[in-house]
Amino acid sequence: MSEQDEKPTPEVSDAAVESNTRAPSRRSLLGWGGAGLALGAAAAGGTAAVLTGGDRTVNAAASGAAVPFHGANQAGIATAVQDRLHFASFDVKTKDRAELVQLLKDWTRAAERMTAGQAVGEGAYGGLAEAPPDDTGEALGLKPSRLTLTIGFGPSLFAKGRFGLEGKQPLGLAELPKFAGDNLDPTRSGGDICVQACADDPQVAVHAIRNLARIGFGKVAVRWSQLGFGKTSSTTPDAQTPRNMMGFKDGTRNISGTDRAELDKHVWVSEKDGPAWLAGGSYLVARRIRMNIETWDRTPLQEQEDIFGRDKGEGAAVGKAKERDEPFLPAMLPTAHVRLAHPDTNGGAKMLRRGYSFTDGTDGLGRLDAGLFFLAYQRDVDKGFVPVQRSLAAKDFLNEYIQHVGSALFAVPPGVRGEDDWWGRALFS
Amino acid sequence: MSEQDEKPTPEVSDAAVESNTRAPSRRSLLGWGGAGLALGAAAAGGTAAVLTGGDRTVNAAASGAAVPFHGANQAGIATAVQDRLHFASFDVKTKDRAELVQLLKDWTRAAERMTAGQAVGEGAYGGLAEAPPDDTGEALGLKPSRLTLTIGFGPSLFAKGRFGLEGKQPLGLAELPKFAGDNLDPTRSGGDICVQACADDPQVAVHAIRNLARIGFGKVAVRWSQLGFGKTSSTTPDAQTPRNMMGFKDGTRNISGTDRAELDKHVWVSEKDGPAWLAGGSYLVARRIRMNIETWDRTPLQEQEDIFGRDKGEGAAVGKAKERDEPFLPAMLPTAHVRLAHPDTNGGAKMLRRGYSFTDGTDGLGRLDAGLFFLAYQRDVDKGFVPVQRSLAAKDFLNEYIQHVGSALFAVPPGVRGEDDWWGRALFS
Repeated sequence: MSEQDEKPTPEVSDAAVESNTRAPSRRSLLGWGGAGLALGAAAAGGTAAVLTGGDRTVNAAASGAAVPFHGANQAGIATAVQDRLHFASFDVKTKDRAELVQLLKDWTRAAERMTAGQAVGEGAYGGLAEAPPDDTGEALGLKPSRLTLTIGFGPSLFAKGRFGLEGKQPLGLAELPKFAGDNLDPTRSGGDICVQACADDPQVAVHAIRNLARIGFGKVAVRWSQLGFGKTSSTTPDAQTPRNMMGFKDGTRNISGTDRAELDKHVWVSEKDGPAWLAGGSYLVARRIRMNIETWDRTPLQEQEDIFGRDKGEGAAVGKAKERDEPFLPAMLPTAHVRLAHPDTNGGAKMLRRGYSFTDGTDGLGRLDAGLFFLAYQRDVDKGFVPVQRSLAAKDFLNEYIQHVGSALFAVPPGVRGEDDWWGRALFS
Repeated sequence: MSEQDEKPTPEVSDAAVESNTRAPSRRSLLGWGGAGLALGAAAAGGTAAVLTGGDRTVNAAASGAAVPFHGANQAGIATAVQDRLHFASFDVKTKDRAELVQLLKDWTRAAERMTAGQAVGEGAYGGLAEAPPDDTGEALGLKPSRLTLTIGFGPSLFAKGRFGLEGKQPLGLAELPKFAGDNLDPTRSGGDICVQACADDPQVAVHAIRNLARIGFGKVAVRWSQLGFGKTSSTTPDAQTPRNMMGFKDGTRNISGTDRAELDKHVWVSEKDGPAWLAGGSYLVARRIRMNIETWDRTPLQEQEDIFGRDKGEGAAVGKAKERDEPFLPAMLPTAHVRLAHPDTNGGAKMLRRGYSFTDGTDGLGRLDAGLFFLAYQRDVDKGFVPVQRSLAAKDFLNEYIQHVGSALFAVPPGVRGEDDWWGRALFS
């Protein structure tokens, strides 16, 4: 009965969506058997059609539709933020460049299928009985759920003597500087390759990362991974602004995923910026920010609001009535988070934030291991994350309640253009 | 704008739902200010009305409705399984019985409000500016999302010299026997009190556990907790059967949450069973079952299907065509999982399963720390979990791919009858 069911997913309030078509279920596609045929049909059905504000009659999030995988930029950046995240950072184990290239090709084909709501290869029960299935099966019958898979390459991949990429390392892809207060765990930091899986259904995101890891067995190994259960930033300004684990609205003034001018100015690497292989790509900063939840929860409301520079209920900046009223920075404490992070304090720096709240059980002292997995895409790290984080690390009173425990930087290549293209082709060609 | 938005949640295919009313948002309720008034209105709006199979015109899961908190049995057991889980096991730190009783009363009042979609107490920004807020705020603006909170009491709570409960310990609430292959981590096992939070939105479930922990600060401490991202069992037999992380359908023959006779026979403790305080309650077995995902993924399809005794695609038992066809046990290998777990092999034993898939990042070897967090409610553990697990632990070939790494048993008291009642009143009176 699954094929006929409607399966809405949360956040219909995210009105800017990728598609207005009903999505085929994974199982029904699988039933068609052939790979190319089903893929073509799904891709055609997933044509981008961004709806604006008031129009909610048809909604891709609600129908669990597919986000198109192919395009000039990778999906999962300007895409309206999905509800759930599974992020994985891989170490490359093989020393063979050809083997790595083949893996990137295999991953691309698998990503095309999974984002279209199809099983990998012959599926979970479509191949030989004597062989392990091509797909692990736990997403059978689930809708595409707006799954996006976004790849990035870390600085270590370009190291001399590894894959001959040292001449192609972008200047902007150096290790991040050490910031005041950093308490980074190397086992939660860095990595040669990252894949960000976002979907409105966590089982779909987990399935995708797991199958990429399975395909890469022996060639790559997961270095660290992070699940995010709730988005903390929206790229659809007319939607309800999500709240972080401190109870405050986050990302009110985020870059809109449909604002082409802002995206070109702050997010996409241009051909002039170089290197050529990265044009249409971006830089991704990932930071695991642990919150001292228990201490924060015993802090008076006024102090919480002073620290942020916004009120907790509406999310309005100090002295303002509404969340989206332009903040008047001199009205805030010089240490207020909003003031320190504001573009006016940082030479106009803006990033597209796509972070998620996480909760990874409890630590040895019975405290919730929870916080923000910060993800930000930007055209230039030295004009984006670095100055903003320097400013925050030096002065933000929030530092009493948070700690950066993981960090990674990746160069995110442009989109895959079609079925002959693959993740990283321009880099490896 | 959030108040007017429809906010569907996943799994509309779970057709049996608790309410056909539109749910008020947390924020709109908070705006009303008064506690009792808003609570009464929400409770009235949440009247139980179970819809069956074909009727999907109005759907509580889609509207994010509230599940009534009050009743003869606790919600969160027979309730149609929600999509997400946050489970916490607490150690009681206070030695003062009166303080523990007061905490249980405070928790009950908070649970009434949170399950109705309201903030705790005066809310996240409704109290004194000089005081920490009564609610942490991250669920403001979110729908009730069918949140249920279900409490249970562990054997250690009844220990002599603690709270004077030694005479009230149910005979069935002994420690579980050690099973072959158990590799239990004490830091993931046991606990004095558990709370199971289930909701269709993980942020709502996490918010609830966090606020109970906050309210209990100094009196209780979280011993361990577990997030579940995808349900692996359904209590609505006409809905799509979920798949576990091995890619197989799970819980096909689960007890239906609307089958009163089966619930009375297998789930609810009767007055005859005793003790009196537990009548209308149940026993909960929780087991953290780690799966060796990577090994499983390299196992041939035929072997996987032989191990389960079902085919992977349809989920039909060996020799049968359809998932719900009655299995013919002699057709299966004597070691087949379905055969070993079947009631006919275990003196008619049946449990109501409510487990969730989990993924907690990766272990030190780069393997996914993933599996099944098994939750089963039953009237009698010695006729339910114990014989079934003995049989599985001894013979199930699945044991090559799984390991039980956490275990706990709780007596789950009956429901809270009204606003003068509280969790555990009969036990402590």
